[in-house]
Amino acid sequence: MFRNQYDTDVTTWSPAGRLFQVEYAMEAVKQGSAAIGLRSKTHVVLACVNKAQSELSSHQRKIFKVDDHIGVAIAGLTADGRVLSRYMRSECINYSFTYESPLPVGRLVVQLADKAQVCTQRSWKRPYGVGLLVAGLDESGAHLYYNCPSGNYFEYQAFAIGSRSQAAKTYLERRFESFNDSSRDDLVKDALIAVRETLQGETLKSSICTVAVVGINEPFHILDQDAVQKLIDAFEIVKEPASEAPAAAEPEGGAGGAGGDDDAAQDPPAAADEGAAPMEI
Amino acid sequence: MFRNQYDTDVTTWSPAGRLFQVEYAMEAVKQGSAAIGLRSKTHVVLACVNKAQSELSSHQRKIFKVDDHIGVAIAGLTADGRVLSRYMRSECINYSFTYESPLPVGRLVVQLADKAQVCTQRSWKRPYGVGLLVAGLDESGAHLYYNCPSGNYFEYQAFAIGSRSQAAKTYLERRFESFNDSSRDDLVKDALIAVRETLQGETLKSSICTVAVVGINEPFHILDQDAVQKLIDAFEIVKEPASEAPAAAEPEGGAGGAGGDDDAAQDPPAAADEGAAPMEI
Amino acid sequence: MFRNQYDTDVTTWSPAGRLFQVEYAMEAVKQGSAAIGLRSKTHVVLACVNKAQSELSSHQRKIFKVDDHIGVAIAGLTADGRVLSRYMRSECINYSFTYESPLPVGRLVVQLADKAQVCTQRSWKRPYGVGLLVAGLDESGAHLYYNCPSGNYFEYQAFAIGSRSQAAKTYLERRFESFNDSSRDDLVKDALIAVRETLQGETLKSSICTVAVVGINEPFHILDQDAVQKLIDAFEIVKEPASEAPAAAEPEGGAGGAGGDDDAAQDPPAAADEGAAPMEI
Amino acid sequence: MFRNQYDTDVTTWSPAGRLFQVEYAMEAVKQGSAAIGLRSKTHVVLACVNKAQSELSSHQRKIFKVDDHIGVAIAGLTADGRVLSRYMRSECINYSFTYESPLPVGRLVVQLADKAQVCTQRSWKRPYGVGLLVAGLDESGAHLYYNCPSGNYFEYQAFAIGSRSQAAKTYLERRFESFNDSSRDDLVKDALIAVRETLQGETLKSSICTVAVVGINEPFHILDQDAVQKLIDAFEIVKEPASEAPAAAEPEGGAGGAGGDDDAAQDPPAAADEGAAPMEI
Amino acid sequence: MFRNQYDTDVTTWSPAGRLFQVEYAMEAVKQGSAAIGLRSKTHVVLACVNKAQSELSSHQRKIFKVDDHIGVAIAGLTADGRVLSRYMRSECINYSFTYESPLPVGRLVVQLADKAQVCTQRSWKRPYGVGLLVAGLDESGAHLYYNCPSGNYFEYQAFAIGSRSQAAKTYLERRFESFNDSSRDDLVKDALIAVRETLQGETLKSSICTVAVVGINEPFHILDQDAVQKLIDAFEIVKEPASEAPAAAEPEGGAGGAGGDDDAAQDPPAAADEGAAPMEI
Amino acid sequence: MFRNQYDTDVTTWSPAGRLFQVEYAMEAVKQGSAAIGLRSKTHVVLACVNKAQSELSSHQRKIFKVDDHIGVAIAGLTADGRVLSRYMRSECINYSFTYESPLPVGRLVVQLADKAQVCTQRSWKRPYGVGLLVAGLDESGAHLYYNCPSGNYFEYQAFAIGSRSQAAKTYLERRFESFNDSSRDDLVKDALIAVRETLQGETLKSSICTVAVVGINEPFHILDQDAVQKLIDAFEIVKEPASEAPAAAEPEGGAGGAGGDDDAAQDPPAAADEGAAPMEI
Amino acid sequence: MFRNQYDTDVTTWSPAGRLFQVEYAMEAVKQGSAAIGLRSKTHVVLACVNKAQSELSSHQRKIFKVDDHIGVAIAGLTADGRVLSRYMRSECINYSFTYESPLPVGRLVVQLADKAQVCTQRSWKRPYGVGLLVAGLDESGAHLYYNCPSGNYFEYQAFAIGSRSQAAKTYLERRFESFNDSSRDDLVKDALIAVRETLQGETLKSSICTVAVVGINEPFHILDQDAVQKLIDAFEIVKEPASEAPAAAEPEGGAGGAGGDDDAAQDPPAAADEGAAPMEI
Repeated sequence: MFRNQYDTDVTTWSPAGRLFQVEYAMEAVKQGSAAIGLRSKTHVVLACVNKAQSELSSHQRKIFKVDDHIGVAIAGLTADGRVLSRYMRSECINYSFTYESPLPVGRLVVQLADKAQVCTQRSWKRPYGVGLLVAGLDESGAHLYYNCPSGNYFEYQAFAIGSRSQAAKTYLERRFESFNDSSRDDLVKDALIAVRETLQGETLKSSICTVAVVGINEPFHILDQDAVQKLIDAFEIVKEPASEAPAAAEPEGGAGGAGGDDDAAQDPPAAADEGAAPMEI
Repeated sequence: MFRNQYDTDVTTWSPAGRLFQVEYAMEAVKQGSAAIGLRSKTHVVLACVNKAQSELSSHQRKIFKVDDHIGVAIAGLTADGRVLSRYMRSECINYSFTYESPLPVGRLVVQLADKAQVCTQRSWKRPYGVGLLVAGLDESGAHLYYNCPSGNYFEYQAFAIGSRSQAAKTYLERRFESFNDSSRDDLVKDALIAVRETLQGETLKSSICTVAVVGINEPFHILDQDAVQKLIDAFEIVKEPASEAPAAAEPEGGAGGAGGDDDAAQDPPAAADEGAAPMEI
Repeated sequence: MFRNQYDTDVTTWSPAGRLFQVEYAMEAVKQGSAAIGLRSKTHVVLACVNKAQSELSSHQRKIFKVDDHIGVAIAGLTADGRVLSRYMRSECINYSFTYESPLPVGRLVVQLADKAQVCTQRSWKRPYGVGLLVAGLDESGAHLYYNCPSGNYFEYQAFAIGSRSQAAKTYLERRFESFNDSSRDDLVKDALIAVRETLQGETLKSSICTVAVVGINEPFHILDQDAVQKLIDAFEIVKEPASEAPAAAEPEGGAGGAGGDDDAAQDPPAAADEGAAPMEI
Repeated sequence: MFRNQYDTDVTTWSPAGRLFQVEYAMEAVKQGSAAIGLRSKTHVVLACVNKAQSELSSHQRKIFKVDDHIGVAIAGLTADGRVLSRYMRSECINYSFTYESPLPVGRLVVQLADKAQVCTQRSWKRPYGVGLLVAGLDESGAHLYYNCPSGNYFEYQAFAIGSRSQAAKTYLERRFESFNDSSRDDLVKDALIAVRETLQGETLKSSICTVAVVGINEPFHILDQDAVQKLIDAFEIVKEPASEAPAAAEPEGGAGGAGGDDDAAQDPPAAADEGAAPMEI
Repeated sequence: MFRNQYDTDVTTWSPAGRLFQVEYAMEAVKQGSAAIGLRSKTHVVLACVNKAQSELSSHQRKIFKVDDHIGVAIAGLTADGRVLSRYMRSECINYSFTYESPLPVGRLVVQLADKAQVCTQRSWKRPYGVGLLVAGLDESGAHLYYNCPSGNYFEYQAFAIGSRSQAAKTYLERRFESFNDSSRDDLVKDALIAVRETLQGETLKSSICTVAVVGINEPFHILDQDAVQKLIDAFEIVKEPASEAPAAAEPEGGAGGAGGDDDAAQDPPAAADEGAAPMEI
Repeated sequence: MFRNQYDTDVTTWSPAGRLFQVEYAMEAVKQGSAAIGLRSKTHVVLACVNKAQSELSSHQRKIFKVDDHIGVAIAGLTADGRVLSRYMRSECINYSFTYESPLPVGRLVVQLADKAQVCTQRSWKRPYGVGLLVAGLDESGAHLYYNCPSGNYFEYQAFAIGSRSQAAKTYLERRFESFNDSSRDDLVKDALIAVRETLQGETLKSSICTVAVVGINEPFHILDQDAVQKLIDAFEIVKEPASEAPAAAEPEGGAGGAGGDDDAAQDPPAAADEGAAPMEI
Repeated sequence: MFRNQYDTDVTTWSPAGRLFQVEYAMEAVKQGSAAIGLRSKTHVVLACVNKAQSELSSHQRKIFKVDDHIGVAIAGLTADGRVLSRYMRSECINYSFTYESPLPVGRLVVQLADKAQVCTQRSWKRPYGVGLLVAGLDESGAHLYYNCPSGNYFEYQAFAIGSRSQAAKTYLERRFESFNDSSRDDLVKDALIAVRETLQGETLKSSICTVAVVGINEPFHILDQDAVQKLIDAFEIVKEPASEAPAAAEPEGGAGGAGGDDDAAQDPPAAADEGAAPMEI
């Protein structure tokens, strides 16, 4: 169980110049259920997998509207994600109150990243355990950013985070060159297929995924469940042959193997219900 | 006894991206006596099991009125639950004083969750050790939420928390589709049966359970003991054959086995009186 | 001596969801000399055992008047108890100054419990090491509460805390149904007998116990020693046959055995004078 | 040397409900040179043993005047005692400035005890390492209190603290019934004999003890050395036969043996000059 | 894994007078992708290698404009670098607002270094994990500084930091005497060749490097990708024979071997994607 | 090297009631070069041994003027001593500014001791590592005090502190009865002889000692080196036969053996130049 | 690697009364490149060895001008030295602004030492890791001080600090008697020879040393490189026969052997470039 003496305090450097606590927080993102984002010139689509705790509950929300022009999908610690999206909302309100114009997406993303960086440099805090895909539209066009627990952010054409996101990334990489000129509906279709890739043999249904869109003349909104189901049916998105799934899973298993799999083995088993990551509960 | 080096500080991530102290606080909820909630379109019913410390005492209160339209049932650390329900009460008072309308249930639940999240990100605090079933009625209808020590919350049709809640959950899952259109009295009946499920062979009496209702034209109130007993008699809720109990207990034993049972073995025995969880005293 | 890694810090949860430091503070109550409370519809009687440090000293006070309508008996860390009863006194003064009416007993008890809860959630504090039996009379009648170091409180018909309190509890449970309608003097008699039960073979004398009463038309006051001795003589409360004592002691030894007896073995012996718990000195 | 994991932090409870750091601070009182107090209805006498560091120095003061009606004798950490007696002095000045009457002794003693209690509940402080015998005269008569590092206080007819105080306590217990009606001079005589009891074979001389008196029409003052020597000569207080000394010492050796003697063996020897407790220097 | 007891706290000196945590933070700079700076009398050129996380993302920005006359290239923790360059920007704005002239480069560099030094002397912070090449032009000419996590800074004619920077340094040292009188375009060419040296067999393309220039009559700006590609083509900068690369890598491997390589071996493998240093993500 | 678990934190009591960190700080006084004080009715003389770091430096000052009527000689951590004497100076200035009379010596000594006591009761400080001999003259006559790191102080006729001070103390004890009526010059002579006693075979020269005097009509001043040499020559203070030196050294070796000598063996050797205690450098 | 339990916290005393963290910080001074100071009645000369990080960089500045009449040469942690010299600069400015006269050198040196002392008495700081040779001229003449990390300071006729400074000290001690009456140029010559002594076989060139002078009618200034080279040529300072060097090095090896050499062996090797102490980078 013991690994090293440099990985219990966020303000302690390892001899090789790494901050393990920050890297561990990044692992929390991989434990969350998958979230996917795609961007064309005019639209950004966010999609995520919903794991309801049980039949009795509605699912945990993973996509939040921040403002008319910005929304966010999260993977990892849901409570951290909610607190951060509330912060984003209040920043947007303050900006538009002061300047009477919407807060540019890139600017909000930097503020969010700076807030995360502070948590990596104080001994009495911890890094946030959540990754955020930020979708937005402003004067400079449609944007998709990924904000990481380390305080970094990246702009993406398309990206997938969370558990089993490697299969989705593989799909997105095969197709991403076409995204920039995709129509809104093609983007949604690709988002749904990417979601399906992360399901490992489960059938894609509107009840287990959420899709949101923001674009020109279309404020950020979450598609309702019926609309999503109709799209699934229209696009005839059924599970592809299982033959690809193991292969797609393999790279992730390999890449994350040293850290991820061993970790799972090393962390004592927690009393998780129904296989969901306990911290997401 | 030793488990790992990442689980004594709430601000320390494990290599696999988990916050063990938060998960351990969630275990405290499982140690509390059971609490149950059900919701129809018009009513929400809360019920809980009362374990009096002894014949000499009245039982510990586990259901609190927050406002005319909101109430809460807790499982876990009673003192934490009391402090949180006091916070909820003062939020409701402040809101209705300022806006002259009742605080929407969902909004209160988010504030409560944010308060819990803060305790998971400061090294000199600890996560709250209590789960709260929040029942409320506002303009958007009847609501039942579960607030977790992790700072997460969920909306439920029906839910059960606390010790031996698995049996109740099994019952609720079998029946939940009918709840939305249930009458107030059917909801109460189902709540009582769910309570009975958690009793493991004990007979259901009004003295060992509390039931509360909030609904249209019915402010949140706790039913008096005689009324409950009459309902028990009327519904003829007697113990079902014991054959089911072990089976119902099994899943829980299995699910929580890695964490729960081992934990019980690993924690040194405390001087508990009469088998109640000592922290509930 | 080593038990586990989760029990030295009040903000650390054990894997099974317990706060050991809070439970250990509850053990301090068991180390104090016994305190007993009984309530009828009109009166509450508090009684406690006095262990003078030596012939040279007056005994340590364990019963404090808080206000005309409220008093308190403590078991455990006397200094903590004194500080808390001072807090109660100033709350009563502030309330009656502001509202020109006495502070309701239940309200004071909640404030006291909240104060105790805070000490269970800050890393630089410790839980109070004292249990308080709060006796009071207000518009809703006579009340007897027990406030625990965990931040919990309970309402009781009759209760006993402190060392060897199990024997007293056994007596009280046998008789408690009659208490509600007892006369003031019968309550005092039962209190004295309960005190005698905790003495293990010692003879009950007025010099080793304190009795206080609050009731309708009778402000909280401590009975003077002569009055108590007269009552002892009048009621002919002599030691019952010793045969019962070991039996009465057995349950406690059994109940507390896992925690209590082992603890005593595990804690290194302190330089205690005359067998009194050192922290009570 | 290792004892347990619960005894290095003043805010950590042991499993048996003890605060070891507070108990250890109480040991510091036993290490100080002896201090003795006696009370009649009209007078209180304080006496203590002076151990000069060397011929070159005047002895360390152990008796302090607080106000005209209050004085204090200390045993333990002299610097802590000096700081506390300065606190007492300023409380007396403030009170008499505000109320134009002397501060009642019992009230001062409670304030002092509360100040000590705070130091037992903050992780960044330590309990005071000094015991104080407070002698005072107010409207309610003559008083003798003992204030302990734990934040407790006791009222005594007569008491002795510090190293080898057991022999003095034995003497005082044999005689205490007569103290209440003693004349001032008899009290002084008894104080001197009690001092002699702690000397273990040394001859009582005025140079190795200090005596102070407060009484009706006699403000608190320290007797000058000649007067004390005259009293010693007048009372013919010479050493009693040595045969009693070992016996008197035995109980203490026995009582404190588990803690005291072992401790002495376990603590590494410090570079003490002339056998005095080093912290008293 | 255990190295010594002096290297987990930034405020702890080793017996030999070293601050290991500061040295470890300096290792983080070596983990970042390479950054290069060159200076002539009139121009400063910054260049860096871009490692896009995947095809889906734009690359992480490593060169930031601070003001018209100052820019910065970073290697190491990108989030720390972004926060520091934001600090530099606001210092420049404040200065020019107050003095109506641009902030001298050297003065900004000292302020930046002082900010870094503070983080090496507070127990609740950590040293920044980023190295900054600061390029600027002011009245005293063109300047190139390197700011180190230790709080030190150096003025350079040319310098390279980050992973595999040794090969670039070797090239720069061979040529640096000519830099002072180089034309702007020759500086850019040398920068591109130095970047190529760090690539270890990869072909230099405009997509994997960023080049920025500041000089007389040329405000700090990042060259656009096409321009860079044209320069690469114009200068015919192709990979040199691989024979030199291992040799160039060797010294670094040797110099950093004791610390760097062992560290890599000693730090447990993290779940890094695509071989990039995880903290740069 | 390991001694016990109670000696690394100044706020931790040992089981026997000792504060080891305070005692260790007292050891620092013994490591400093010797300082000596003597007092007659009218004069106080301070003297100390000067160990210049090398021929190149002037010696470290160990005697400081505080005010016209007060001076101080230190042994131990020179930096701590300097800071404390600066404190004393500013207290004297403030007092004389406010009251237009010199600050009484005893009052200053108590303030100094209280300042030292605070450092023994805060977890984030350390006790001062310096002993101070305070010489002063006020309306109550000439005074010589010793202030100890523990927060205690003592009044002395004559005293010696620091390394090899035992030989000086032995000399002073043989002669101290005559000091009270000594002339100023005899006091100086005795001081010089006492200094010589600490030298262990070195010849007494004015270059290795400093002498200061305060007395009636003689403000505190340090004698100049020539005057001291003339006194040495006049008094014919040459080294006494070496036969006494080992004997004089023996007691110290014996007394301090448990702590001092073992400590020297237990502490790892530091890189001390020329045998001086490194902290004095 | 493990040495003892008293050397990781600056506020922890060792049993022998030493503060190891302060001593370790003093080792950092020995790790820096050498700095030398000499003083005549009218001038002070500072000189230091420059180790450029590489051909590409200008060397690290080690001599700073504080004011027209004061300058400082440092050895050890350059960043700490820069921060302290900035402090000295602002003290000089404030003083001359307030008093319209230059700050006396000795007064500045005391303030600097007090600032260093504070860092040795707070648990959340660390001692500065730098030694400062302060050269100044004021109304009381020319002064040369050495300020040490311990908070001490010394006045010197001539001194050398830093790595291999022992050889320079040996030279200075042989010659120091003549310094007081030396001409400015002779002082510079002696400084250059002393610098040469520390070079161990390297040839003295103006490029590897810096020389600064302050004196009557000569404000503090650093000599330009050409002037220094001319002086080297004029004085014909070539390397003395190597035979002396090992001898000169030997004492240092011997003196610092216990601490210095072992430490080097005990500290794990860091990734140092070109043999310079890494913290100086």
